[in-house]
Amino acid sequence: MAADIAEQPDVLAGLLDHGAADIASVAARIAEYKPRSIVFTARGTSDHAALYAAYLTEIRLGIPTSLASPSVVTVYDSRPDWSDCLVIAVSQSGGSPDLSQVIAAARASGALTLAVTNNPASRLAGEAELQIDIRAGHERAVAATKTYTAELLTLLLLIEGIRTGTGRLEAAESAMLDKLPELASDVLDGSTSAELAGRYRFAERFVTTGRGYAYPTARETALKLMETSYLPSLAFSGADLLHGPLAMTDAGVPVLAVVGAGPGGHAMWNVLTQLGRQRADVVVVGAADLPGQTARLRTPAVDERMAAILDILPLQQLALHLAIGRGENPDAPRGLKKVTETT
Amino acid sequence: MAADIAEQPDVLAGLLDHGAADIASVAARIAEYKPRSIVFTARGTSDHAALYAAYLTEIRLGIPTSLASPSVVTVYDSRPDWSDCLVIAVSQSGGSPDLSQVIAAARASGALTLAVTNNPASRLAGEAELQIDIRAGHERAVAATKTYTAELLTLLLLIEGIRTGTGRLEAAESAMLDKLPELASDVLDGSTSAELAGRYRFAERFVTTGRGYAYPTARETALKLMETSYLPSLAFSGADLLHGPLAMTDAGVPVLAVVGAGPGGHAMWNVLTQLGRQRADVVVVGAADLPGQTARLRTPAVDERMAAILDILPLQQLALHLAIGRGENPDAPRGLKKVTETT
Repeated sequence: MAADIAEQPDVLAGLLDHGAADIASVAARIAEYKPRSIVFTARGTSDHAALYAAYLTEIRLGIPTSLASPSVVTVYDSRPDWSDCLVIAVSQSGGSPDLSQVIAAARASGALTLAVTNNPASRLAGEAELQIDIRAGHERAVAATKTYTAELLTLLLLIEGIRTGTGRLEAAESAMLDKLPELASDVLDGSTSAELAGRYRFAERFVTTGRGYAYPTARETALKLMETSYLPSLAFSGADLLHGPLAMTDAGVPVLAVVGAGPGGHAMWNVLTQLGRQRADVVVVGAADLPGQTARLRTPAVDERMAAILDILPLQQLALHLAIGRGENPDAPRGLKKVTETT
Repeated sequence: MAADIAEQPDVLAGLLDHGAADIASVAARIAEYKPRSIVFTARGTSDHAALYAAYLTEIRLGIPTSLASPSVVTVYDSRPDWSDCLVIAVSQSGGSPDLSQVIAAARASGALTLAVTNNPASRLAGEAELQIDIRAGHERAVAATKTYTAELLTLLLLIEGIRTGTGRLEAAESAMLDKLPELASDVLDGSTSAELAGRYRFAERFVTTGRGYAYPTARETALKLMETSYLPSLAFSGADLLHGPLAMTDAGVPVLAVVGAGPGGHAMWNVLTQLGRQRADVVVVGAADLPGQTARLRTPAVDERMAAILDILPLQQLALHLAIGRGENPDAPRGLKKVTETT
C-alpha cells in the first residue's frame, strides 16, 4: 500500500503525458454526441471518483447527472430509458459483473457508453462503446489508492475536454494540471500523517466531512479507514452533518474535515463553528487555518477541482499509518479480495 | 417520539382517504408533462424518502432519475439545464433555504417543480409550481418518524399515479395499499423491538444494510440510531458492503439487515452468507427466516414497495427503546433543532 501511494506523482504525470490524447478524443466524441444527461455507475472507491465527476458534470457542464444504482438493472430487471444519455462505468478492475450488465442495458436502450478502467482487457471495457485506460499500472494493495487518483484525474481531463468541445483543455486548466505531479510529490513528502496517526492510535471511530468537490474525499477517507484499520468511519456532507448526525459528535470523536480554498471550503466554516460548540476534535485537511481546529493536514491552496486529487494523499497515508500503528496489515484486509464481484 | 410513532397507522389511513385525490391530480399533470428526467433534492430523513422514490421512478417509470446535491446551486452557483425535467423537493418542514434555492433555479431553467412537504404554508411549498401536503400533522419529536412514512406513501401514490397516466392507481396497487394502515398497526403492536433493545443496550455501534427499496430503510435506521442514541451507525447497500466495509464487521458489530420478500431481499442472501462467515451478529428485518440470523424483527411478506413503509416501523421503535435504555432523551437530541437551515 505504501508503494502504491508513493507512485501517485508518477502515475499522474504519466497520465498527463501519455493518456491525455486518448481522453481528449473520447471527450471530443462525447461533445459531438451532446448527451441530454450523464449517468455514472460504480462501486466502492470508484463510486467516490464517480461522485466527484458528477459534481464536475453539473457544475462545469450544466448537464443533469445521476449516479445509477446497478440494482435497478441487475436486481429489479428494469430498463430505464437512457436514450441520448452518456452512461459511464468507473471500475479499477473492470471485473464486477453488475457494471457490465448496466452498460449492456444502457447500450440496448440507445445510450452512448464509456468504461473508465485500469484494465483495457476487462469484460467491462469490452462491453462499452468507448474506453479510457487510467494507466495506473498494477495496484498491489487491496485498498485502492493510485487507481483512485488516476480515476479522478482521468474524469477531470474528460469533463474539461467535453466543456471546450474539442477534447483539449483551456489554457488555464492546462497550466493548473501541469503543476499537479510536483504538488502531489510535495504533499506526500511533507505530510504529517505519521505523527497524526500517533494521536489517533486509540480512537474508536472517525467522522469525515466536506462539501462539494471535497465530499468525495471525505467518503473515500472513511472507506480507507474502514478497509485498513476496521475503524468505523462516518462520512457526511457538511450540510447533512447538521441534519441529525451532529448530535453524535463530541470530544471523543475525531472529525476529519476537508476544507478547501474555494466555495466548498467556505461553506464548511459554519459546520466547523458548530463542531466547535460540540467540543469535537477536528483535523482540518486543506490550506486554511481555521478557528476551532485541533490539528491539521496541510495541502496547497489550489482550485477545488484539483484539490480533490491532492487532499486525499495525506489521508491515504493516515489510513496506512493508523493500520500499522494498530497492528493491522493494510495489505491484506480481512474478508476482502482485490476484485469484488457483485450482481 | 413514542406518540409520533404510534400515530403512523392513522396518518397513513388519513393520507389514503383524504390526500390521494390531490396527489392523483398532481400525478396526472406530471404524466401529461412527460418529464425527460426526474430530479429529487432533499436532506436528512427526507433524503431517504427521496432515495426510495428514485428507485421507484427508475424501476416503475423507466425514467432516468437523479438526487441533486443542493451545493451545485447554492455553493457553486451553477445552473444545470433542467428544462423538461421534473424537480421534486422533499422536506418535512419546507424550511431549509437551500431546497428553496434549488427549486427557484429549476423553475428558472424551465423545469416543472414540485414541493412535497408537511407544511403547505412553507417557503418551499410557495416556491414550487406544484405542491403536495403529506398530511402527517404536527410532529412533536425532533427525530422524524411519521413524516418519513407519510413521505414514502405520498411518493408511492405519486409515482404509481404517474405510471397509469391518469393519476389514479391500478387495481392491484389500490388493493395492496388498502391493507397498509392495518398492517402498520399490526407491526407496531406485535413488534419485539423493546426486547431487542435490551440485547443491544451495550452495543457500541451498528451496521445497517439492505438492497433496492430496502436500502433507504437501512439508511433511515442508521440516522435514527445516531440521532436518538448517538450510536455510530453505518448504512451500506448490500453490494457496497462487500466492496470494503465487510472487513470491519465481526462478532462485536450488530448488523441490522432489511431483507424483504422480493428481488431486493433475494439479492441479500449472498450478503448474509458472507456476514455469517465474519461471525457477525445479524438481526434480519423482514418476513423470511434466514440461515445465520441471530435475531429478527418480523414484518409481513408484502411487495417491497409497501414493505419499505412497514419495515421502518419496528426499527423506529428500536431506536426509541435503545435511547431510553441507554439513559438518553430521544425527544431532545443534543445539538439538533426541528428545522435545520442549511445553505
